[in-house]
Amino acid sequence: MIKAAIFGASGYTGQELTRILLGHPEVELVAVTSRRFAGKTVSDVFPALRELITLKYQNATPAQICKICDVVFLALPHGVSMEIAPEFIKAGKKVVDLSADYRLKDLKVYESWYVKHSSAKFIKEAVYGIPELYRRQIKKSKLIANPGCYPTSIILGLAPALSKNLLDVSTIIADSASGVSGAGREPLIGSLFCEVDGGFKAYKVGKHRHLPEIEQELNALAGKKFAVSFTPHLLPVKRGILSTIYAKLKKDVSLGELHSLYISFYGGEKFIRICPEGAYPNISSVCGSNYCDIGLALDSRTKRVIILAAIDNLIKGAAGQAVQNMNIICGFEEGAGLKIAPLYP
Amino acid sequence: MIKAAIFGASGYTGQELTRILLGHPEVELVAVTSRRFAGKTVSDVFPALRELITLKYQNATPAQICKICDVVFLALPHGVSMEIAPEFIKAGKKVVDLSADYRLKDLKVYESWYVKHSSAKFIKEAVYGIPELYRRQIKKSKLIANPGCYPTSIILGLAPALSKNLLDVSTIIADSASGVSGAGREPLIGSLFCEVDGGFKAYKVGKHRHLPEIEQELNALAGKKFAVSFTPHLLPVKRGILSTIYAKLKKDVSLGELHSLYISFYGGEKFIRICPEGAYPNISSVCGSNYCDIGLALDSRTKRVIILAAIDNLIKGAAGQAVQNMNIICGFEEGAGLKIAPLYP
Amino acid sequence: MIKAAIFGASGYTGQELTRILLGHPEVELVAVTSRRFAGKTVSDVFPALRELITLKYQNATPAQICKICDVVFLALPHGVSMEIAPEFIKAGKKVVDLSADYRLKDLKVYESWYVKHSSAKFIKEAVYGIPELYRRQIKKSKLIANPGCYPTSIILGLAPALSKNLLDVSTIIADSASGVSGAGREPLIGSLFCEVDGGFKAYKVGKHRHLPEIEQELNALAGKKFAVSFTPHLLPVKRGILSTIYAKLKKDVSLGELHSLYISFYGGEKFIRICPEGAYPNISSVCGSNYCDIGLALDSRTKRVIILAAIDNLIKGAAGQAVQNMNIICGFEEGAGLKIAPLYP
Amino acid sequence: MIKAAIFGASGYTGQELTRILLGHPEVELVAVTSRRFAGKTVSDVFPALRELITLKYQNATPAQICKICDVVFLALPHGVSMEIAPEFIKAGKKVVDLSADYRLKDLKVYESWYVKHSSAKFIKEAVYGIPELYRRQIKKSKLIANPGCYPTSIILGLAPALSKNLLDVSTIIADSASGVSGAGREPLIGSLFCEVDGGFKAYKVGKHRHLPEIEQELNALAGKKFAVSFTPHLLPVKRGILSTIYAKLKKDVSLGELHSLYISFYGGEKFIRICPEGAYPNISSVCGSNYCDIGLALDSRTKRVIILAAIDNLIKGAAGQAVQNMNIICGFEEGAGLKIAPLYP
Repeated sequence: MIKAAIFGASGYTGQELTRILLGHPEVELVAVTSRRFAGKTVSDVFPALRELITLKYQNATPAQICKICDVVFLALPHGVSMEIAPEFIKAGKKVVDLSADYRLKDLKVYESWYVKHSSAKFIKEAVYGIPELYRRQIKKSKLIANPGCYPTSIILGLAPALSKNLLDVSTIIADSASGVSGAGREPLIGSLFCEVDGGFKAYKVGKHRHLPEIEQELNALAGKKFAVSFTPHLLPVKRGILSTIYAKLKKDVSLGELHSLYISFYGGEKFIRICPEGAYPNISSVCGSNYCDIGLALDSRTKRVIILAAIDNLIKGAAGQAVQNMNIICGFEEGAGLKIAPLYP
Repeated sequence: MIKAAIFGASGYTGQELTRILLGHPEVELVAVTSRRFAGKTVSDVFPALRELITLKYQNATPAQICKICDVVFLALPHGVSMEIAPEFIKAGKKVVDLSADYRLKDLKVYESWYVKHSSAKFIKEAVYGIPELYRRQIKKSKLIANPGCYPTSIILGLAPALSKNLLDVSTIIADSASGVSGAGREPLIGSLFCEVDGGFKAYKVGKHRHLPEIEQELNALAGKKFAVSFTPHLLPVKRGILSTIYAKLKKDVSLGELHSLYISFYGGEKFIRICPEGAYPNISSVCGSNYCDIGLALDSRTKRVIILAAIDNLIKGAAGQAVQNMNIICGFEEGAGLKIAPLYP
Repeated sequence: MIKAAIFGASGYTGQELTRILLGHPEVELVAVTSRRFAGKTVSDVFPALRELITLKYQNATPAQICKICDVVFLALPHGVSMEIAPEFIKAGKKVVDLSADYRLKDLKVYESWYVKHSSAKFIKEAVYGIPELYRRQIKKSKLIANPGCYPTSIILGLAPALSKNLLDVSTIIADSASGVSGAGREPLIGSLFCEVDGGFKAYKVGKHRHLPEIEQELNALAGKKFAVSFTPHLLPVKRGILSTIYAKLKKDVSLGELHSLYISFYGGEKFIRICPEGAYPNISSVCGSNYCDIGLALDSRTKRVIILAAIDNLIKGAAGQAVQNMNIICGFEEGAGLKIAPLYP
Repeated sequence: MIKAAIFGASGYTGQELTRILLGHPEVELVAVTSRRFAGKTVSDVFPALRELITLKYQNATPAQICKICDVVFLALPHGVSMEIAPEFIKAGKKVVDLSADYRLKDLKVYESWYVKHSSAKFIKEAVYGIPELYRRQIKKSKLIANPGCYPTSIILGLAPALSKNLLDVSTIIADSASGVSGAGREPLIGSLFCEVDGGFKAYKVGKHRHLPEIEQELNALAGKKFAVSFTPHLLPVKRGILSTIYAKLKKDVSLGELHSLYISFYGGEKFIRICPEGAYPNISSVCGSNYCDIGLALDSRTKRVIILAAIDNLIKGAAGQAVQNMNIICGFEEGAGLKIAPLYP
């Protein structure tokens, strides 16, 4: 049993991490921090967890937490992680950072989309934590930059096709839709039930902060530099992201060939499920699980491939992938604590 | 006061027509038909309309209805309208057909996507009923092919840009999402609350029957032949369609110029609202109204324009537009009966 | 045309008043106030109203507004209305107050449930604004205490039975459920989409501030003093209240007799609809309208009557009833501006 | 490992059983039957289970299934179970019947609410499967009549108070609300998304088939005969039942005493959680779990206790409780396979 702590545990991602770690066979959750709810028990704030946990939220310093844990999850806003992480890194602890702070390898890009970085020297130690693509590097790392939710769905959706050089990369468009939990638990007018229910809209069109992260990883996969169009939308659901990804094919491939490619690329991956030909993923079929479901369509009239990738934004898009990464860096079975079937309906 | 009848009035579109016509200052609703609910009052089937209407659903023949009305709305499935419409057309009645039966000018295209046509000779008399584009022709017609819901949003969204020849038409992608009422009131497993709530998925990718209709109209606007990609999605909401439309620009235009173009193209149109720069439409802001809200974004890095168009699929996407067309062919004020503000929240 | 103003127009109730008054044939809306959104146009805050209104929110004083309007609606929190109303009352303006400040006739009761009252002397001038019960008094008044949403449904549901002395009043229980818009547009964690969607819970059991108001009116109807149990619940819907009301019958009545009583009690009331025997109201069938739908059941085994009353909390439970009251005090047709059919589905 | 089969596995309850049994450490799921989907894989019908199960639905006879399993779950409609169960009972298999067929001990009552019984002689062998109340009897039984969803919430909510004789039983009212999955996966108009979303209504007031079951068990707990009022409502959520239960107290008890009684009555029960004083359960806090959360309020003015009990209707109200019962009759740890934390948000 290793000892784990969660820094910033009172948001939706922190709560999801808490829930998953409570059921993890190899982990003892020893501390959860929260400024806002310091002194309250977790189950005061999240009654769903009543009798599953007795911990209280603490307003603790990194130094205090560092002493008692082997691995720490940082479920903090960008700009805050960079202040907290160094203490743990220097102490040799394993760190899974769920913020954007160590995801972008180019400091200038980071600073142009986010804020000035206060611990940039650690960026090069970080591994971008998509196990299906970077498992070997993750295994050797102690600092995981856990991917953003939108990027996870888009990168996993495109990786096989890009790796085979099938796409005209100048034509890639990712049209994505996310559930409201992606906006966190901050009390904002835009996240109120009455503002969201019955609605659907795009936001930050072409300007979402996940864009540089998406491009960094897609460029790496393709081995060249290019820009993509990315349009996020807000769905009236609690959990789930569906990315509908368009690109022109550079060569003729049949749907069967494409399908085989995806199945072989992800052969053996326990958290990737390729839909049968003609079937497309639904976010409600991955809800509550660490799965990424991928569907494929060919539009032969326009020579486009349409790739559909669905995840639970709080799990494969955040807390679940973080635990998957922890499992790898700690040498546990990769699916430990994550064998939760989707909750349907 | 003219006398109107609705053929096939017990689905969601028929009910919406009923509701709108009941509040129309120039119309007396004289008959509503339904096979399934024949003999029941409308308010037995739709308690929301209790005390607003005393009519019963009839299982009447076209000949019977033809005798008592001046204008008829056909809210029937495709393949059925084509059997019912001729009686009314021959009798010189005004017909607004909400099915697909007279929308496609090319009979072969119709028959390859739908069924064999039994009254194809009337296709050439039909006008495709988007008033903002074909007002003059509608005025002179007696047979309106009322547009599909997805096509309405996509055509209205693209018309200004296409008419100015701004787009590389080979790059057009329409990524759309619709509320469940678009699937009608048939009791299908796929439309059950438990199947839809919390979910989001694409369906009929590249194969939806609205595709030939979209292409027919976009080709006409652009004055040339081309194919588009169209991906419909199912939203867990009752009403509303949002289309997110992508295309590469052929020339450099600023967002301001594009915005001005749209405002001037639709100047004076009472049912088109162009969002201010930087704002995007939300389906919940058009819900219950005949508005089409359009927002614009430029992705300068990829030279793409992203056009967002939102409608209430049952109103501007069906019953409202049908009444707007009726107003035109009957010489009423175009907005009569349609001055309903959106219901928000 | 009279000139109307709304004080506190940027919450959901204020917005709904705005929407209704914009469609009112006898009213010119001349001012809307909001501290938070002062300087913004209404449609910046509520894009649904774009092109329907050009007014900006003002941070105006009562004196400023008083000069320009004939009637004022106060859509303010309790404790604030009492500060604003006097200026208008003294100037002889017609005032419809949507807060609780003038609803409770017993000052001590008010102050024990709310706050110290600063303009208590006006309480006796106020009429409790349920037109179906107090139309005559409303007609003569200039200060309307517009009822709470829960009380409206419960009082209208019980009035016929109480007026006929049918019930053992010691057994009355009102079990109610409300949509989230009842909590207003304040950004509170408890009103977030993720906290509400998929949930259902009771709150403030036996302690909700609407309780004294409910008891005041039920006691008046019965002509005696008694307490009731009232349990509000939060529904994952935007609009709507359903009250399920239980009471033991003092005498044997058949369902048919009860039904006839309700129909005759509310005969001629245009906003009350009694469901046919065996049918029960659904909040979605009154959504968007000023209707109160009432259904009746008899549980002969337990000698209980179960009364079900549904309203749209923002309309018959707030803004619609306020306009109905305004129509009465201004001598307009009582349904003016309120002839909006429910929006279904 | 024991071998389990599910008869009628393609409805929501059957699917939930499938999901739970797949994660059960002591169970091998060997067969799932379905007439409608015979020949299809489970994951064709429920893509959420893709890669978790390879079984196909069979249209098998009881005799065929009987040969291959040790325990069978009947997730069938009432009237069908009674035809299927005898084969298994006679063969000495353990049977958990989720229908109503063996729940009512009084055959006449069963036949007056349901249909003629074809295997009534087995009724006396059946134990009503609420483990918290009948654990000892369940342990010795081979035929479990798994309780209805509404009854589970109401019986668990009232058991402590009734067992202590605190209540005037003539005053008991159970006002309940259920998510739509309770209506099953049949394609009915009333279960369509557009009919349910945004709505809330009572149905079968005083006439629901769960009433005799509720009364049988409450009467047994109280040791006397009495009738209760029960009003079910339909909630626009997928899962969850909240019962708000009212009764007059026969003696003065403080909330603290009541609270202590409930905590001590359910001391050691791993699936019952008593909310802290002043807190009430929310169905979203039990969603996905086998918990029953209970909250308590005292209305001292009316001498009523208000008991609030929340469950996930598909789990503690059906499949989870069935597995809990199976665990007991098979001698497994009672929580085996059921240690799933609620999924929140």
